[in-house]
Amino acid sequence: MIYFDNAATTKPSQTVLDIYNRTSNECWFNASSPHKLGTKSNNLYNKAKALVTKNLNTTNHNVIFTSGATEANNIAIYGICNKYLNQNSRIITSKIEHPSVLNCFKDLEQKGFDVIYLDTLNDGTVDLKMLETSLNNNTVLVSIMWVNNIIGSINNINEIIKLVKPYKKAKLHIDAVQGIGKLPLSFNANEVDLITLSSHKIHGIKGAGALVYKENIILDEFLKGSNQQLSKSGTIDLAGCVACAKSVDEAFKNISSTVLHVTKIKNYLIDELKKLDYITINSSINSSPYILNFSYNNLYSETLMHYFEEHNIYVSISSACNDKQRKPERTVLEATKNEDLALTSIRLSFHMENSLDEAKQFIEVLKKYRK
Amino acid sequence: MIYFDNAATTKPSQTVLDIYNRTSNECWFNASSPHKLGTKSNNLYNKAKALVTKNLNTTNHNVIFTSGATEANNIAIYGICNKYLNQNSRIITSKIEHPSVLNCFKDLEQKGFDVIYLDTLNDGTVDLKMLETSLNNNTVLVSIMWVNNIIGSINNINEIIKLVKPYKKAKLHIDAVQGIGKLPLSFNANEVDLITLSSHKIHGIKGAGALVYKENIILDEFLKGSNQQLSKSGTIDLAGCVACAKSVDEAFKNISSTVLHVTKIKNYLIDELKKLDYITINSSINSSPYILNFSYNNLYSETLMHYFEEHNIYVSISSACNDKQRKPERTVLEATKNEDLALTSIRLSFHMENSLDEAKQFIEVLKKYRK
Repeated sequence: MIYFDNAATTKPSQTVLDIYNRTSNECWFNASSPHKLGTKSNNLYNKAKALVTKNLNTTNHNVIFTSGATEANNIAIYGICNKYLNQNSRIITSKIEHPSVLNCFKDLEQKGFDVIYLDTLNDGTVDLKMLETSLNNNTVLVSIMWVNNIIGSINNINEIIKLVKPYKKAKLHIDAVQGIGKLPLSFNANEVDLITLSSHKIHGIKGAGALVYKENIILDEFLKGSNQQLSKSGTIDLAGCVACAKSVDEAFKNISSTVLHVTKIKNYLIDELKKLDYITINSSINSSPYILNFSYNNLYSETLMHYFEEHNIYVSISSACNDKQRKPERTVLEATKNEDLALTSIRLSFHMENSLDEAKQFIEVLKKYRK
Repeated sequence: MIYFDNAATTKPSQTVLDIYNRTSNECWFNASSPHKLGTKSNNLYNKAKALVTKNLNTTNHNVIFTSGATEANNIAIYGICNKYLNQNSRIITSKIEHPSVLNCFKDLEQKGFDVIYLDTLNDGTVDLKMLETSLNNNTVLVSIMWVNNIIGSINNINEIIKLVKPYKKAKLHIDAVQGIGKLPLSFNANEVDLITLSSHKIHGIKGAGALVYKENIILDEFLKGSNQQLSKSGTIDLAGCVACAKSVDEAFKNISSTVLHVTKIKNYLIDELKKLDYITINSSINSSPYILNFSYNNLYSETLMHYFEEHNIYVSISSACNDKQRKPERTVLEATKNEDLALTSIRLSFHMENSLDEAKQFIEVLKKYRK
């Protein structure tokens, strides 16, 4: 099997599963219990939080462990915005955000918020000039992803921090799911109000993620209940928290070597794809080394995906479609403004265990395709 | 260690952890991916759902796996009520619900819902006469727990089903966390609109639960995103779903033997406690065999809890208190109407691995307490 779909999910590492099991077996107590067993669990929970902030190098941030990035994004966005209902406040995001951000903004738009959806430039990054002109004193939230999940474009978070900073009411949320643990931190996380990360994208377990946010921010309560984790109630999944923190720690340790490795694979593929006149590469030159998006002239994404599948190669079609109605892939369309490219796009996404030999096999199989 | 705090959480069984690990290692793919690996994952996900409904013996219900009972309760309540905002609809619950139900109702009350909080009778069950008189054609939701988590009172769900049924608009939600997998189902789950269950209360993993609901109900979207599980978005935690279903299946298989076993322990303790004139038993004769709540005359809960802790015995104080301000335990107060009892209550909760010998040790240690 050649698995080139690591932006969708990755295989959990044995180290992460081991710590999940050890915690489940040795410290399975309720972290909210006031007896010693509860205190023991609570100490481990605090250690897990500290391991996350240590890796992000934040000194003024709290951590809420969540059931994944979707929940973290929802908690961040509603946690800030619910306090500003019916005040016609401005909130800003981009057109290429993950659905777990975009659909919150669409919902808040219906609830009366003044929503700005930023355009993207042709390299797939968010138009920061438009951000600059959109910011005003009525802006309460800006949510922009670090690394795009479909084409891998990397936004300049330092520049975004600088632009948002003068607007005192505006909180900055970064969905960093495809960046944290994959790329060296290119910005000062202390300067970002809220950061979302996911465990299963970096060889952790599924059902685990975190919202890392400035400790002076009071988030509106999201899950109502016994208030175990401030805005997120419910018995703390200690094994999940510990495993999530471990996956972050492991990922940070391996960043340099992994980046080198996947860059080699991606560069090889780019070189080979460029030789084929029926291929257009959609990922820009500065995009994440983990993601390579391309289109195959006049060949619908799902047809090519199924062809690869027959050869035991797994890619993402980054396009929601069925037989009756084909829809252009949203992000590719935004970046390229080309519907044909958006209907025929394929996403490859890599990890440490992929090899150059797999990339070679991929190119061989691709070249053999007969329309 | 004598662990009498199984209503707070239980130790995950090795069988459940094994299937969690097997799934994490062998089928860690994204269940929403359209390729074969995704389909394989999605099939396992559907099998997990079917295992839950099989055990609940429901033929017309869907399952949403959640990060626990708190999320399931939130999804159920907001999933129904968000459709009735600003319509002055009536919603009914009881005063002894879990905070993850009660705090949703308090929030909805602030949002304009006409909320009825049902009283409890002195056996700790909900006043069903009051339910009968509270129901009207404007009622959209009734949420009542099956088994109370603090004193173990068991509500008559069959009677509640009968009372709610004539009101066509009213949906019935049962928080069954302390009942499912612990007691034989004493009601027809097909007749209940929405049922919440938890995995970590029945030797499953934490961070896993489910909302089982009639498939013709359209719930308002709770977590916004890619819509993987209807109202709950986010990458499906397949290992968590499979492990959750397994814990339900295991628990159902063991109900008869476990009930017999914990009943013996509870009855022994009741007999012994009755001999002590400084003890008042707060759990009624018909309460769950898993839970025994009592009060120690003039001795604050936490003092006794810490005394037991010194003897490596773990109980719940069912009371949130600190040195400066002692609060009577809410449920004990509702059931007994006696503040002294509510300030001095202790909850014991049992599981299969507890022994009669542990119960004997507990009584010995209790008797030795010197004020």
